[in-house]
Amino acid sequence: MDERELKKLVREVIGTEYTLDDCAVVACGGGILVATTDMLHEETDFPVGMTDWQIGWMSAAVTLSDIAAMGAHPAILLLAVGLDRSGRLREILEGAKACCTACGAVLAGGDLDSHRELTIVSSGIGFSDRETLVRRSGARPGNLIGVTGTPGRAQAALDGYRQYERFLFEPMPRMAEGRTLAQAGATAMMDISDGLVASLYDMLDANECGFSIDSSLLPLIEGIDPVRNREYSLFGGGDFELLFTCPPLILPLAGIDVHVIGSVIKEHTVLVDGDVAPDRGYLHQWIV
Amino acid sequence: MDERELKKLVREVIGTEYTLDDCAVVACGGGILVATTDMLHEETDFPVGMTDWQIGWMSAAVTLSDIAAMGAHPAILLLAVGLDRSGRLREILEGAKACCTACGAVLAGGDLDSHRELTIVSSGIGFSDRETLVRRSGARPGNLIGVTGTPGRAQAALDGYRQYERFLFEPMPRMAEGRTLAQAGATAMMDISDGLVASLYDMLDANECGFSIDSSLLPLIEGIDPVRNREYSLFGGGDFELLFTCPPLILPLAGIDVHVIGSVIKEHTVLVDGDVAPDRGYLHQWIV
Repeated sequence: MDERELKKLVREVIGTEYTLDDCAVVACGGGILVATTDMLHEETDFPVGMTDWQIGWMSAAVTLSDIAAMGAHPAILLLAVGLDRSGRLREILEGAKACCTACGAVLAGGDLDSHRELTIVSSGIGFSDRETLVRRSGARPGNLIGVTGTPGRAQAALDGYRQYERFLFEPMPRMAEGRTLAQAGATAMMDISDGLVASLYDMLDANECGFSIDSSLLPLIEGIDPVRNREYSLFGGGDFELLFTCPPLILPLAGIDVHVIGSVIKEHTVLVDGDVAPDRGYLHQWIV
Repeated sequence: MDERELKKLVREVIGTEYTLDDCAVVACGGGILVATTDMLHEETDFPVGMTDWQIGWMSAAVTLSDIAAMGAHPAILLLAVGLDRSGRLREILEGAKACCTACGAVLAGGDLDSHRELTIVSSGIGFSDRETLVRRSGARPGNLIGVTGTPGRAQAALDGYRQYERFLFEPMPRMAEGRTLAQAGATAMMDISDGLVASLYDMLDANECGFSIDSSLLPLIEGIDPVRNREYSLFGGGDFELLFTCPPLILPLAGIDVHVIGSVIKEHTVLVDGDVAPDRGYLHQWIV
């Protein structure tokens, strides 16, 4: 089964409602609780060269970024750690705790196990008002499409541009940006850790409208030639930036780094520079 | 590092507050949110002979049992599944969903990954009133010690007594028992999945008082000789029963299967039949 078939199977069993967003959404008192879980393991998720502290940081960041993408306030994070060597635990926990602290969350326990391959699952809980929660659905034709920060730097680091290593090894979840966008009236939001175009396709999955972006509106990554730059920005993975849609009138927003890169269209498709975009993440061999 | 040293390290980094209970405890509106995560993997956690449906069921059950042990109502469960073969996913999800449904929880999403060894992390969230939440701490000298059901049957099944296999393969979290005990005024509670005596030591860790039980008060497991029976009941793992302390006056409680097995004492120790109990789980080689 490929990933698409697996997703279909999950929806058959647990229903579509809980599978379209970065987090599960549950009513809680008068507000909303959001919850999310992410599994990472050494071979596929932690690039060579990361310290255990950075592995801990990233494990917390992936989950906190999902909470940011709903426009919610993070509350707690739980970490289940399957250790290949017990000596790694302290640095992993210290890194995860540092990321939680930076994001306003509390590392509130978890589970320990031994594992042949280092495996970490972080689970996070956040809270939101009903009015300001932002889901992946909700985009409307005529909305603008925006993105925080500069997509593509994590992929550039993975390709050897070491000046961008901190974006790959110590990604900073966009908590404040997520909340600011939610309060200002963003209509749809998600994080782009799988790549910008791949995320536009995920958003397509949750909306009846479509998305058209102009790659020339993407911020440039300094010191990288235009062809690679475009490839990294559109298809690179590992960035913890937020992709969002919003009514034109709410922009610009003071205090956050946001670029408008396109607009929501009626046609149910993803266009980049006018052409239907390939539904893929970054493929290393495409760059010579 | 052994398990004790690892626990100490965790407490150094994240603090003691979040490491003493079956769940993390967070204020939420006027009430309490409890959250917990459990990592399971094939080699060490799923006995040979389990179906994938039962693996899914058990993965949900371990987490829901932690919520039951706080006297809380379960809300949602998230499942992170690292699959060695994608063909296993449907049965695992169906089993987890069935356990959630049986316990009044909703399977609300998760994460998928591929893994050399099947690895499942379930994370659960529940809610409680401030007044009825039960923690591991809170035991008072003079309280009775009680346990739900018949401890030891899961271990008996693991040793080949196949008539008890469903207690090992499809453990039923004691949701109703947990809530009834909490509402009636239980002072401390936890589940005994690591074994009854091991759990008394965990409770000792969270209380200044101690615990004295009488093994003759434990319910007998039918068809098993007395020596094995005592060993299974005291040290066997895998049972999802609840261990609790309470003021004498609240018992008996209508509608739940509970045995009083001892009392809370002033001295900070764990006694079984008057002797200090060994702090261990079940060791197969001890039975000839």
